[in-house]
Formats: sequence, C-alpha cells, structure tokens
Amino acid sequence: MPHHRPDYPADLVQRAARIRLACFDVDGTLTDGRLWFDEDGRESKAFNVLDGQGLVQLRKAGVTVAFVTARNSRVAANRARELGAEPHVDVRDKVACVEEIRTRLGLSREEVAFMGDDLPDLTVLGIAGLAVAPASVHHWIRDRAHWITPSRGGEGAARELCDLILHAQGRVAALLEDREG
Amino acid sequence: MPHHRPDYPADLVQRAARIRLACFDVDGTLTDGRLWFDEDGRESKAFNVLDGQGLVQLRKAGVTVAFVTARNSRVAANRARELGAEPHVDVRDKVACVEEIRTRLGLSREEVAFMGDDLPDLTVLGIAGLAVAPASVHHWIRDRAHWITPSRGGEGAARELCDLILHAQGRVAALLEDREG
Amino acid sequence: MPHHRPDYPADLVQRAARIRLACFDVDGTLTDGRLWFDEDGRESKAFNVLDGQGLVQLRKAGVTVAFVTARNSRVAANRARELGAEPHVDVRDKVACVEEIRTRLGLSREEVAFMGDDLPDLTVLGIAGLAVAPASVHHWIRDRAHWITPSRGGEGAARELCDLILHAQGRVAALLEDREG
Amino acid sequence: MPHHRPDYPADLVQRAARIRLACFDVDGTLTDGRLWFDEDGRESKAFNVLDGQGLVQLRKAGVTVAFVTARNSRVAANRARELGAEPHVDVRDKVACVEEIRTRLGLSREEVAFMGDDLPDLTVLGIAGLAVAPASVHHWIRDRAHWITPSRGGEGAARELCDLILHAQGRVAALLEDREG
Repeated sequence: MPHHRPDYPADLVQRAARIRLACFDVDGTLTDGRLWFDEDGRESKAFNVLDGQGLVQLRKAGVTVAFVTARNSRVAANRARELGAEPHVDVRDKVACVEEIRTRLGLSREEVAFMGDDLPDLTVLGIAGLAVAPASVHHWIRDRAHWITPSRGGEGAARELCDLILHAQGRVAALLEDREG
Repeated sequence: MPHHRPDYPADLVQRAARIRLACFDVDGTLTDGRLWFDEDGRESKAFNVLDGQGLVQLRKAGVTVAFVTARNSRVAANRARELGAEPHVDVRDKVACVEEIRTRLGLSREEVAFMGDDLPDLTVLGIAGLAVAPASVHHWIRDRAHWITPSRGGEGAARELCDLILHAQGRVAALLEDREG
Repeated sequence: MPHHRPDYPADLVQRAARIRLACFDVDGTLTDGRLWFDEDGRESKAFNVLDGQGLVQLRKAGVTVAFVTARNSRVAANRARELGAEPHVDVRDKVACVEEIRTRLGLSREEVAFMGDDLPDLTVLGIAGLAVAPASVHHWIRDRAHWITPSRGGEGAARELCDLILHAQGRVAALLEDREG
Repeated sequence: MPHHRPDYPADLVQRAARIRLACFDVDGTLTDGRLWFDEDGRESKAFNVLDGQGLVQLRKAGVTVAFVTARNSRVAANRARELGAEPHVDVRDKVACVEEIRTRLGLSREEVAFMGDDLPDLTVLGIAGLAVAPASVHHWIRDRAHWITPSRGGEGAARELCDLILHAQGRVAALLEDREG
C-alpha cells in the first residue's frame, strides 16, 4: 500500500521515530493564522478536524501532545483539553516551557518535536530533535525546520507531522487494520 | 444540453442509479474541516448553501438523506434537521449506524451511498454501494472510494454527489423544467 | 487610463448602460456560499467589503439595489439595509419579487440586472435585461447568464457587476476625480 | 542570509528607510475584506496573526502604527488597541486623519506610509511617502501604490510592509539575534 507511505527522506523518518513529545504552536500552525473578533473583543479561531484526528491518534500511540502559544487564549486552551493535549498558553518563553515538559517527562531533546511558523518559534525550533514548519512558515525562520510540510497552517499541516511520526513508529498499518476489525 | 451531464464513468452512474439512502460525514465532507470555537468553547461550523440545495433536491427525489458524524455536535444536528436529513451525531460506530438506517428502510447495501473523508469513515465506505470522498480526502482512505469528487469538502463536494445521483436517476431535466414552469 | 476599463464585450456594455435596478441573490453570490451556525442554530454569514463599496456607488449613481433571497435570513436583511438596498428575504418566487420591484419603479425588463448562482435563480435570470453569474456559478445555470464575472461569489463578483454598470454609464472617471477633489 | 532579504527595488528600500508612521486601512488590507454578521447585525472580522506580529515589531522599532478606516467598527478599534496602534475608525476624510497624526508627531510626508486597497484609500495613497497596496487591490487604485505586496489583504500583506520597513531600517538581524539570545 504505497499510498500509505509518502516519500519521506530517511533522516526525517529517523528523527520522527524517536519522538515522545510533540509540541505545537497554535496561531498559524494549528490555524491559518486568522483571529476572529466580535464587537466585544471576544476571540474565536478555527481548528481543523484533520489535525484533531491526527493529534488524538498520536496520543493513543503514546506520544504526549502539547499546545505552546504566546497568546493568552482560552480558545486554544479549551481545544487542547478537548484533544487531551497539554494546554500551555500565555507562554513568554517557549524554550523554558518545552524544557519544563521535556524534563518532567524524563525525555531527551531528540525525543521532542516542535512545530511553529513565526518569530516566537525561532529559538525553540533550534532545540527540538524534530523541527517542523507548515508551508506557510515566515521566511525568516524557514531554515530552522528539518521539514516543511506540504500543507499550510490550519489546512492539515499538523496532521502531516502526526502522520510522519505514526509512520516512522510503525503505527499506520495497525491503525488502519483496527478500523477494519 | 451537454453542460448538464458531466462525463461520469458508466459504472459510477450505474451505482448512483440504485441509491435510496445517502449518508454524509460532516466535518471535512459537508464542511472544509474547520471548527470555530469561541472563548467559552462553543462551536460553530460553516455549511455550504450549494450542498444544502443538493440535499433538498435529493430528498425531493425520494432519497433519504442522513448526517453521520462521530462528533457530538448540536450544530450538525440542527443543520441536518433544517434540511430534512436524519441527524446522527456522537456516533461511535458508523457501520452500525448506517446499517440501522438501512435495515429500518428495508434497503440493500447497493442502495446506500456514503461520503466521507477520514479515518472514522474507512470501514463504512467499504460497505456502501456507492462510496464517495471529496477531493480533500485523507490519502489513507482515498482508495476506498468509488469516486473522488472534483471539489473539496465544504466547497460543493456533497453537491457533486447529489448531482450525480439526480443525473443517474433521470431527475435533472424535470428539475430544470419545473423551475422554468 | 486603460486600467480603469476592463475589456468588456460591446453588447455587454450596451446591456449594462440601460440598468436602473440591480438585484442580487445572497448566498453564493454576495457570499462564498458558506453559512455559519452556532450551537443554538443561529446563523452568520460573511459579506465582502469590496461588494459593499460597489453597491453604495451604484446606489449613488441612481441605480436601485435589491437583495433577493429564498432564505429567511435576518443577516441578509440587515446587510441590505446597511447598504441602502431593498431587503427581500424568504422569497418563494424570485420572478414575482423582481417583477413587483420593477413595475413599482416603472421600469422595463431591459433596465433590470439580476445576479445569481444556483437553481433558485434559473428562471429570474431568464427575464433580466442583464443576467450575470459569479465564476462559481453552478453548471446547470451557467448558460443563462450574459456574463460570468472573473471572481467567485463572495470574492468580489458583485463588485465586478457594479463596476461594469458604472463604466457603461460613464460614471467611473467622475467617481475617481471626486475622490481626488 | 539572503533568505532574510527579499529582492526589494532600491528606491522602495529608500522610501521605507524614512518611515516613522505606518497607517493601515482595515477591511481588505488587514483582513481579506470579509465582514461576518450574526442575526442581530453584530459584526466580526478576522485579523491575521502574521500581521499582528509585524505591527508589534514595527512599534518596537519606534514606528508609530495607526489603523485608519471609514467603517465605524469597534472590532477594528479593539484590535488596534491590542496591538498598541492608534485606532482611527469612522473616518470620513482619510487625508485629514493622516495629516492630523503626521503633524501631531512632527513628521514630513516622506516619513508616512499608507497601505490601502480600495476607493476610500485613493487620495491618501497619493500623499504618502510610501504608498502600498495588497495584491488584492482594486484595479482602479492599483497605479497609486509604490509597491503591491505579494500577498493579498488578510493573508499577510501588512506583514510584508512591516518586514520591508524593518529591513530598510536595518532591524532584521538584531531582531533575529535577540530571539537567539
């Protein structure tokens, strides 16, 4: 079933095979970057069900999932909780935040993936064993990523990272067979 | 009037001619997969009026229409009711759900169409007489569909399935003439 | 200034020069067809400020503007009023509705433009002196339009009809000079 | 690091190097032009986090940022305040508004950038030292801009103006190094 296995570079699969913690920036990564505001200044944002499906599968495969966003957003925190992900919002220092989760879980940096798209993700991408950005990544930080996903933020980019990790960890066949069961 | 008749493969038209029940996944199929959340965690989603028009015509042609979604969504249930479709939300087992509707209506599997785009639709697509997916279908389940619509989910993909069924059942000319009447 | 004058066919300009009443379908024409629903079934939709600007200019040029939609939508009625357009919602018979406006204003059919994109617009497009559809028009009714705009519904298609009428009626130069004034 | 420096024309960089005040139209420039309305006529709109990031960096670099919109929009005013920008809404005369800000800040016209996309921006673009429009600009005013950004309104067009100014004023390297710090 070759259609289950996109043609990932070998070193990318190697990196993905080690991941035990996957951290995601929110705006521009899990969304297309748009923030809706109503007349009272209340915020909404749109998550993609494709990404949600992938994050749940990742978690079921034993990978810890975390949202890490600089924005103080109840919307992001709620969505993280709905998907069983750690909600880290209003984060001033993304490196410190990811390092706290990593050490708490007793992981090495090689076991951490981070996905982000803009300036606040620049440094944290540099310490992740697997640094990923959506196709819509800002050009200032493009070179920091080991992989640029085919899809843009909010259009399934995060799902593509989930699929890579699931593939690298040999989870896809079982996952599809289980559905057939 | 050749513009009324896209160039459907003959076996696809044959399958569509038998359909008496058309079931639709919601997120990613009747929508583009985006879920809006406000600060209180309340959900919105966007349906396409193109699809709504098609579903109503399908129902008028005597085809039962059902929404079948794993998500516990009042938004989906409300929209189903507005269009005269059966609202099946919070569905743990899509096969069991579709089989319940099918046997209740006294139909064979050949008379059932299912449209879906992701992992939770994998198995149910396998038992449908006409299995359809939007252009935005996840690649893991792409091969399970008899037809991939030209349009993506939420951009008229469901309407394209409605049009196929209406065409295969010889309903289009009357439907356009009636409007002229 | 050739960039002010797209290369319209001569007969299209002739038709547009006569228009005194411009009627617009709403969903799919003034929007991209998406209907947002929240958990209480309350509807939102998105209008484009490009279209709003054009409709206001059309009205200032003495052309009556009307929204004509089959959907019972307070959103559409409110937006019509905000732009100084006649709000006709929950319309069962679009021909009767447009004919009522037309005769009330003492106009001939040649003086009426209608823009629509789907089945409920089929017949009324047939009686309009200028029948226009957005690029996203359903293929069943595509042939009924004298002009298909370059843009899709909700992405400036209605503005393109406004611009055509303003151009055909010799209003563009004055409108731009006035801004310079 | 050539990827930090898009290939801007030299005269554009010269103009951008002088900017101390950057003014932005809202609908169609900081958004994709869509206005959401609910059943009570309440408005929402979607800003892009890419643009927000750029506007904050611009302000930190000592450039005053202002929103200048003809629409009486609490949504726009709130978003301006959140980003530390001057909120000018319900503006009848954009030239007068920008001139008031400019003289209050003791700046010359060469030090003012304006970004807009439609008829109400026509005249004010003519007095700005740096006149910019998004790729989605209306063709009537296209020629008034010194630069058309690669991106459309609401898809990062404003960020591209911010990046140009930051580049022209030699701020990019320090900004990236600071993140590394």
